[in-house]
Amino acid sequence: MNDCIFCKILNGDLPSARVYEDDAAVAFLDIFPFTKGHTLVVPREHVGMLPEMAPEHLARLITVVQNIARRVMKAVECDGFNLLQNNGPCAGQTVSHVHFHIVPRFNGTPVQWTPNANLYAPGEMDAIARKIRAS
Amino acid sequence: MNDCIFCKILNGDLPSARVYEDDAAVAFLDIFPFTKGHTLVVPREHVGMLPEMAPEHLARLITVVQNIARRVMKAVECDGFNLLQNNGPCAGQTVSHVHFHIVPRFNGTPVQWTPNANLYAPGEMDAIARKIRAS
Repeated sequence: MNDCIFCKILNGDLPSARVYEDDAAVAFLDIFPFTKGHTLVVPREHVGMLPEMAPEHLARLITVVQNIARRVMKAVECDGFNLLQNNGPCAGQTVSHVHFHIVPRFNGTPVQWTPNANLYAPGEMDAIARKIRAS
Repeated sequence: MNDCIFCKILNGDLPSARVYEDDAAVAFLDIFPFTKGHTLVVPREHVGMLPEMAPEHLARLITVVQNIARRVMKAVECDGFNLLQNNGPCAGQTVSHVHFHIVPRFNGTPVQWTPNANLYAPGEMDAIARKIRAS
């Protein structure tokens, strides 16, 4: 869709720290991360909310999510993660294009949901993206 | 698993406000809900965290989640919902058996993640479960 920021990222019209892509989905680091390694998995097709997706497309997407979650865990050496998928502005969905958040969590660090655009030191985001791609 | 509270619920050894079941998964209302209609979708097989699930089982589970989310939205007339799945105690996973939270959200009500064991009036939980089952 013309005015969708995720469609622009998927099409390469906007930059992203991409960690994975296939013909159905793309994964990249969130620029407003909750924690280091916070990754978004986004289907290439523009669908606004999860209930609208074709079940077979969603089934395929979740296996990509699982694959990326395993890679993220290995790359950032976290102890667990939250998988979050928001539907509607009332649920905190800020981009109206289905996406799954993979949010690494670490023992001893409380769960929090505060985006932090300044979480990464210069170059750190790309370094983590490279580690996820390589894992 | 013997000491798993979700296995006990799935086996019928503990009560729940059940809204759906098939041979692969069961859905019931969370007794510590964030909002009214907060529903858990749980695979029958005991698997601790999402990365450990067989991809084909996860693919099937997410289509059940989608189906239940549509029913919950209709039953509680919410404007959106969060889909949350926690992996590991560090991520807030309190029962070590994979489960998806469907959390209804309503326009004008801020997103919050505080469980409330006293959210339902007497009889209200069962009434909502009946509506979800019927939708």
